Order: sequence, then structure tokens, then C-alpha cells
Amino acid sequence: MSEFPITDRNQVKRVPKRGHYDSETVYRILDEGLICHVGFVQDQQPVVIPTLYARRGERLILHGARTSRMLQHIQAGHPVSVVVTLVDGLVVARSVFHHSMNYRSVVLFGRGRLIEPEGEKLEALEILTEHILRGRWRDARKPNRQELDATSVVAINIESASAKVRTGPPVDDEEDYQLPTWAGVIPLRQQALEPVADPRLRSGIPVPGYAARYDRTR
Amino acid sequence: MSEFPITDRNQVKRVPKRGHYDSETVYRILDEGLICHVGFVQDQQPVVIPTLYARRGERLILHGARTSRMLQHIQAGHPVSVVVTLVDGLVVARSVFHHSMNYRSVVLFGRGRLIEPEGEKLEALEILTEHILRGRWRDARKPNRQELDATSVVAINIESASAKVRTGPPVDDEEDYQLPTWAGVIPLRQQALEPVADPRLRSGIPVPGYAARYDRTR
Repeated sequence: MSEFPITDRNQVKRVPKRGHYDSETVYRILDEGLICHVGFVQDQQPVVIPTLYARRGERLILHGARTSRMLQHIQAGHPVSVVVTLVDGLVVARSVFHHSMNYRSVVLFGRGRLIEPEGEKLEALEILTEHILRGRWRDARKPNRQELDATSVVAINIESASAKVRTGPPVDDEEDYQLPTWAGVIPLRQQALEPVADPRLRSGIPVPGYAARYDRTR
Repeated sequence: MSEFPITDRNQVKRVPKRGHYDSETVYRILDEGLICHVGFVQDQQPVVIPTLYARRGERLILHGARTSRMLQHIQAGHPVSVVVTLVDGLVVARSVFHHSMNYRSVVLFGRGRLIEPEGEKLEALEILTEHILRGRWRDARKPNRQELDATSVVAINIESASAKVRTGPPVDDEEDYQLPTWAGVIPLRQQALEPVADPRLRSGIPVPGYAARYDRTR
């Protein structure tokens, strides 16, 4: 298990005991998450964009249209910050002040590059597809030349990262525990409902298992 | 219904037909979301941080410890970008290329200020608490002087905003509709599970309705 060095950039300053710097914790959160939020600086303005992603080793893979200004910015090598947040529950304390959330989040910093070799690009698209819906790559029609040319895939080197995790019940001030007020946790989960077939689906095609029993918990 | 002016900053450039600029659509997404991702620039570095929020009119309210570097940065008046993303489903197309997500997101830009008058600060904390868990403010112990002093609350003026929304089934290339491949949507929802009482909860205190039937859809 490797550790990300603690620097001013990735150090968890608010509630330090919630900070984790080991790659195992960081990667587990990255692998469970579905979307990330990418921050970059354009004309001195901060810009944040939500997008799909996947992890490959020490890199994050993003993709999109070749004309995407976010991808063009990233492949130019500018610094980016990427965040993945998993919301696990509302922490309902007796006092307003101690209300909180249970969550697992990763904040990482890095720089990207365009993935150009066709083999590497296809492999990255497979990893992305499988991150989103494991088992799908095999079944779907693969990208053709025109689609590949219209798509940019970038790899962001994870230079620095930290995870922040809160779990468990509320922590109230000692004297508040006697209050006649309910306290506890409301667990929250991202859950998949019954798949909805495309109205144009050919008849007789069953729902694949990976769609019928979709679950991101790893 | 008012409109946010379309400028280079908030214009939805990728798939423009998914862009919405009316305040009704933007506010509805902001009011349903639970957490936001705040982007800012510190020492030329983009930084993104997840946090709770609430909307009050044309402003976004954030809060946290007085020592939070994010809040100190915001109250100094630096520009920020805030994103709220609601994930509604996976769009499973016949081709890898046309895989997508159903989602509703808001990207906004603005600048913040510290809320200092005690009355306004308490009102903002009430709005925040009610945004997270409607009905809770009434039941919880209100902040005391020490807690108020330890908490910063900022209001971010929404200068510019746009929403991006995708709904509906996959859109495949015409010739792919004949493929023997399942296609459709896997709906995703953030769902609340059964509340878990604090192990130190006094006996005989029932779960309040707002915790037992927690639902963010508006």
C-alpha cells in the first residue's frame, strides 16, 4: 500500500482525523464513483464541469468530444483538480451545529495528456465503458474510425490526492444527549431502478444481467 | 420567469439543445440537490471542494468552520464556480459511442461575501438546515454564541448560470437499431434507507416523519 505524500495542497485541514492518504482508500473511492467534478482555470476564472471518468492505475481517464473546451484545456497540460464524492448519509444531531454528513470523497491534483495511439485509446474507452457498466464493452458496437476521430481521451496523472471520510452516528455536546430530540443517521444510497427498454428495442432481446442488477458498490 | 443572459462563460457549447438558461429550471435543480462542488483558484491552482449548500433567492449559501480556507477565500470576494449535478440514469446505447447519462446539472459563477449580522446569519443557517432536512430546524437545539462565532456563512451572488439536462432513451445511429443488442436506460436515484438511531438516543423518542420518509425530489 503506497501513500500520497502530505503537502499543503492535499492536506485535509478541516477535521484532520477524517483525512486518508493511502492509495488503497483513494482508489477504492475512485473506483466506486460514477461521475467526477473537474476544476480548471480559464482566463483567471475557476470552472467546474461534471463528467464521467475511470481510473487506470495512477491515472484518471476522461473522454468527450474532440471539440470540448475542457478536454482541450486538459490536454494542453494545465493543472486540474478532480473530485469524486460519495454521499452515504445525513448525520442528524441534537444541535444544529453538529449536523453533518457521512461521505467519502477524494480530491486530487494532476495534469493531463491526450491519449493518441489508437490501441491505447481503445483500451481507455474500454476501461471507461466498463467502469460505468461492467460487462457492456463486449456487447456494444465498438467505435468506428469516424467516432474515434471525433472523440478525445485524456489521461490525468494523479500527482497528489487525499480522501476524506466520515462515518458513524452524530457526535453531540455531552449535555445535549439528554435532550428529548431524535438523533441518528439517514443512510443515502444511489440505487438503480428497473431498466427501461428503448422504445425502439427489437423484440425478444432480454435485459442483460449487468443492467438488471446494476450496483456500483465494490 | 427570468433568464440568465447567455455569455461565453455560461453558454452550453457541447450539445447546445441540452442547455437551459431560465431561472426556473436552474433553481429547481439547485433546490433538489444536496451537495455542490465549489471551484476556486488558489496560487494559480484550481481547487474543487464538495460541500452542503442552500439557495436563498438569487444567492447560494455555504457554511463551515470560520477557519475553512475555502470560506476565507470566498468571503474575500474571489470568483467561484459552483456545480450541482443530479444523476438520473445510465443511457445504454447499442454503440459504445452513443452511451450517455441522463442528468440535470447547473454550473454557476459568482462571488461571495460573509454574512455578518446575527439575524441574517441565523436565518441563513435555518435555510441551510431546512434545505438538507426539511422540518429539522424546529426540533434541533439552535446555535449558541460560541457555535455562531465558530461558524462562517457566506452568500454567493449568482452572476451567471446555466443548466444542462439530458432525458430519454439512447439515440443510436439509424443502422444500429437492427443490432441484436439490448438498449435502454438504467434509472438511478438517490434513495434514503431506514433511519439508524444514535446508539445513545434516549428511549421513547420516535423517528420524526421528515427522517422516516426522507425524499429530496421536489
